[in-house]
Amino acid sequence: MKSAARLDNTPIDVPRGLANVVVTETRLGDVRGQEGFYHYRQYSAVDLARSRSVEDVWRLLLDGELPTTEQRVSFAAEIAAGSRLSPVVRDALPLIATTAAGADSLAGLRITLALEGARAGLRPLMDLTRQQRRGDLIALAALAPTIVAAQYRLQQGQAPVEPRPELGYVANYLYMLSGQVVSADVVDALSAYLVAAIDHGFSASTFTSRVIASTGADAASCLVGALGALSGPLHGGAPSRALDTLDEIGSTDNIDAFITSRLQAGERIMGFGHPVYRTEDPRSTLLKQVAQRFGGARVDFAVAVEERIPALLEKFKPGRQLHTNLEWYAAVVMELCGLDRALFTPTFAVARLLGWSANVLEQADDSKIIRPSARYVGPPAPQPIPSETDARSAA
Amino acid sequence: MKSAARLDNTPIDVPRGLANVVVTETRLGDVRGQEGFYHYRQYSAVDLARSRSVEDVWRLLLDGELPTTEQRVSFAAEIAAGSRLSPVVRDALPLIATTAAGADSLAGLRITLALEGARAGLRPLMDLTRQQRRGDLIALAALAPTIVAAQYRLQQGQAPVEPRPELGYVANYLYMLSGQVVSADVVDALSAYLVAAIDHGFSASTFTSRVIASTGADAASCLVGALGALSGPLHGGAPSRALDTLDEIGSTDNIDAFITSRLQAGERIMGFGHPVYRTEDPRSTLLKQVAQRFGGARVDFAVAVEERIPALLEKFKPGRQLHTNLEWYAAVVMELCGLDRALFTPTFAVARLLGWSANVLEQADDSKIIRPSARYVGPPAPQPIPSETDARSAA
Repeated sequence: MKSAARLDNTPIDVPRGLANVVVTETRLGDVRGQEGFYHYRQYSAVDLARSRSVEDVWRLLLDGELPTTEQRVSFAAEIAAGSRLSPVVRDALPLIATTAAGADSLAGLRITLALEGARAGLRPLMDLTRQQRRGDLIALAALAPTIVAAQYRLQQGQAPVEPRPELGYVANYLYMLSGQVVSADVVDALSAYLVAAIDHGFSASTFTSRVIASTGADAASCLVGALGALSGPLHGGAPSRALDTLDEIGSTDNIDAFITSRLQAGERIMGFGHPVYRTEDPRSTLLKQVAQRFGGARVDFAVAVEERIPALLEKFKPGRQLHTNLEWYAAVVMELCGLDRALFTPTFAVARLLGWSANVLEQADDSKIIRPSARYVGPPAPQPIPSETDARSAA
Repeated sequence: MKSAARLDNTPIDVPRGLANVVVTETRLGDVRGQEGFYHYRQYSAVDLARSRSVEDVWRLLLDGELPTTEQRVSFAAEIAAGSRLSPVVRDALPLIATTAAGADSLAGLRITLALEGARAGLRPLMDLTRQQRRGDLIALAALAPTIVAAQYRLQQGQAPVEPRPELGYVANYLYMLSGQVVSADVVDALSAYLVAAIDHGFSASTFTSRVIASTGADAASCLVGALGALSGPLHGGAPSRALDTLDEIGSTDNIDAFITSRLQAGERIMGFGHPVYRTEDPRSTLLKQVAQRFGGARVDFAVAVEERIPALLEKFKPGRQLHTNLEWYAAVVMELCGLDRALFTPTFAVARLLGWSANVLEQADDSKIIRPSARYVGPPAPQPIPSETDARSAA
């Protein structure tokens, strides 16, 4: 990044959508699309997903190091302190859950985090020390599993379940959803997904969180804005669409007809393709293994569809490649873990909020606001304003 | 903007904070910082502020033309239809106002707009026609005066006042705040401020609204995210700070000592300086005239401070220039209009939401997601993950 100040205001042209434009330097990680590899602070993300807890990886991203045993205990205490809603917001949850019942699946989480941030009277990040910022971000992100689980239960007509943070981040989330302590196998499977989903390069939502952070705004403003970007259909993050694809295909003998018609129409197949990876998506490779450890008809069917794609591509789009992305096996794994489709995107958000918290914390160290330009391409200005006898009289 | 697809992923370096980087083309307007001029769709913004209503200018930005008489009537009806809260959200206002009482002044507006968007079950912009998007954006932005006024009254222990949209956008806002129909002079003064504040180049909040829109998310996600960015202290948009400066100076015989100490310490003087204008800020010129038409001790004092600056600069920072920005006389004008300081930033947001609505509508025509990059600068990857006997067992 150029650090020299520019003395003029000459517009700088870049590709549409800021593709490949370097907005910031980061120490949080990197996605190497050509290699099919991504990492969090120098450690392979999928290896972390196989071997470390969500808490360990969250702390790695926030603080730069995997925790020692003592650090793990103290970080768990910080998370636990943040996992309970304030009484006033808890009382408002039924109203929010009812009001948001017909909205997108992240709406209730956005509203509740904004309300909890306001209740806490969060101060602008730029007026805080790093330690205070970190505390605000942990407290908000750690509320997400509690909020998602409570709203889901309320929308099902069930009472929310109080958190038991001593179970661990993932086991507590599953406990708050079901009211039961689930098996270690299921916790491990969902952990693998959540760790793999925490961060993944400079997505539009991550970028949003950092643009808002660059204004010095409070932690809730950054995270709520990012949740808004994540809700966009172009963002990705709706693994339920992959199950919809599996349902549409229906059975093994319909795979060829379905895929062929999509390929010939040039239509996207949900669960396939990624703008960055030119190889297998390493997250998909990981979650396929996780799913296959459970096995079952759904897993076999998902694998059958995936494995049939190369032959069909060769026939109808020779030379092209099309790999499963995060959503394909993420959906299968979440279903195996007992999650309803309505919970898939909120669960992705539960993971991604941890990544945003680290991104916001890093951005807050930079005092420069992110403020690009637009090029005016309309009619020449200034033009005289048409007179209007009934327009408002001169101010 | 380059339209040719890039075949490689070579990182593109740009100045910090994306300064002068052209993110998009726009037909909405332009700020010519060197000339001290800005326009909305080819018409001088300050001339519009002197001669046209908020509604006329909002419609100009949304639809590209100042309205005819009939168009004005039908646009007023669209605004009126959007100015009433749904019963469920109105019932929630006391809770939100109480919960947000200790938060930043935009928190209640963010929460309520998010709640109203969820209640309406807004669909993603990318799944809507232009006309539907426009309708969603108008309905949300038109709620802002109602929300701001109701929450202000609730926080003062007063009952909200039902809107009377037939009064016009600005008169209705002032009516909902005070419960009284105010004089045309006051309406014109606040109109001039609001029109001048609707849009002003690619601010960080405007950019935020467009990044979120680029994901295809719903209208509420875009506007709520932008409100978050606007709340950041580095953004600008807190005219109350200008009154704080006037209060700190206190009296005419303290101007020299106060300004001198700030200049010598290299500290910012709130209400002065703008990153874009190298001349007088045209918004300041306009609002100074508006204020001077009212006159009074506060106006004279604000002018006295402004007029003393050049001589002090010449003495202590020769060669430098320092002009009042939007906040300086905006604060004076809002005070003359009877607004409490707590309402200054929310009132700015009421105006800016109209500009964001036009920006989001324009961005939604572009199917390209805004997704830049970051450069990893941490330790080399991949490193082996340290073994931890008590880490989670392999997934």
